[in-house]
Amino acid sequence: MRSVVIISGGMDSTTLLYDVVASGQQVFGLTFDYRQRHRREIECARASCQKLGVPHRVVDLGLLGDLVSSALTRENIPVPEGDYTDDTMKVTVVPNRNMVMLSIAGAYAIEMGAEKLYYGAHSGDHTIYPDCRPAFVAAMKEAFSLCDWHPVSLEVPYLHDTKAGILRRGLLLGVDYSLTWTCYKGSPLSCGKCGSCVERLLAFREMGVRDPLEYERFT
Amino acid sequence: MRSVVIISGGMDSTTLLYDVVASGQQVFGLTFDYRQRHRREIECARASCQKLGVPHRVVDLGLLGDLVSSALTRENIPVPEGDYTDDTMKVTVVPNRNMVMLSIAGAYAIEMGAEKLYYGAHSGDHTIYPDCRPAFVAAMKEAFSLCDWHPVSLEVPYLHDTKAGILRRGLLLGVDYSLTWTCYKGSPLSCGKCGSCVERLLAFREMGVRDPLEYERFT
Repeated sequence: MRSVVIISGGMDSTTLLYDVVASGQQVFGLTFDYRQRHRREIECARASCQKLGVPHRVVDLGLLGDLVSSALTRENIPVPEGDYTDDTMKVTVVPNRNMVMLSIAGAYAIEMGAEKLYYGAHSGDHTIYPDCRPAFVAAMKEAFSLCDWHPVSLEVPYLHDTKAGILRRGLLLGVDYSLTWTCYKGSPLSCGKCGSCVERLLAFREMGVRDPLEYERFT
Repeated sequence: MRSVVIISGGMDSTTLLYDVVASGQQVFGLTFDYRQRHRREIECARASCQKLGVPHRVVDLGLLGDLVSSALTRENIPVPEGDYTDDTMKVTVVPNRNMVMLSIAGAYAIEMGAEKLYYGAHSGDHTIYPDCRPAFVAAMKEAFSLCDWHPVSLEVPYLHDTKAGILRRGLLLGVDYSLTWTCYKGSPLSCGKCGSCVERLLAFREMGVRDPLEYERFT
């Protein structure tokens, strides 16, 4: 069975890549370059695919960065620090990002004759990202079942898992988390302060494991 | 009320543009350049928007042409002639094209603060294009209602209309059909033989009106 895995280079999608490869499927990795500040995650996605022998393709989504504004794509909008809370982190929402990525990945999956398309949305994302909610995922699953004469099954296996739960799974699978990137800022070291870093560090703390990444400071 | 109208430059979406403008909404036109052979439709979309005083943006979707193959985007796949029938016209399907276009248009609509996103799928499309079917449109409407905290309403007013029915509406609205393009081939004149031309000519014949375009030959 052929499958396409959307891999951002973050912890969740990298764990998912290992998971699908471990299941014995023929995997194609797909990463989106939407001019995110945290471009290092793209290099991480490439490195993980290379490590697992998975063909990897990067899709240039610069057009999305041109059309919409977000703290993740515009230098003049600062990335907020602290926890993921509604008020501050919403500037990191890239409008309709997931639908855009899923639709293009779906085109690629159809072209490659893949039966499944995997993406790594999880329960921790729901509070601020509307397009990570289970109801949105359900609607997209339905759309994918109808979008082609050979429809693609949209698979979101971590949808109801927590970040720590996904990390637990990844540790079992032997995921190399030094080849993942989470910080939303573009600095050489992870900041340890943005909502994304805080969430990652909490997951590692919960699992009692040291994060292999270096941080400017630990929160 | 602000609205985004996806306009390809063909008959249906151009009629839709006139329709939404006539309803008094503040309209933004959006066209996709996916390296289609029939690039003249993009110029037509621009001309119709200009004529109606509608701001118009062309999104470069070259990435889709790179990722997938179709007779509409690859020189080495010939465009079939004759009626739209399952066997021959399926090579003109661009995998997941509508989901890709809708998702990007949705991002633009959210960015522009638009409440509605219009697109011109109609009943004549269903037989060969899976992503024009009402069930697909229903799933996408649901996804759009959930994709953002300020969701966009996906409007597909011609979904159950025929091509001739849309033409009837357009003639009432005073649509300038000399500024529309339908032929799938890239020639200076419409071929009059591809499924797309045949369908257009039949609609004009049904309405008893002469098509203002010039053809290489009438079928």
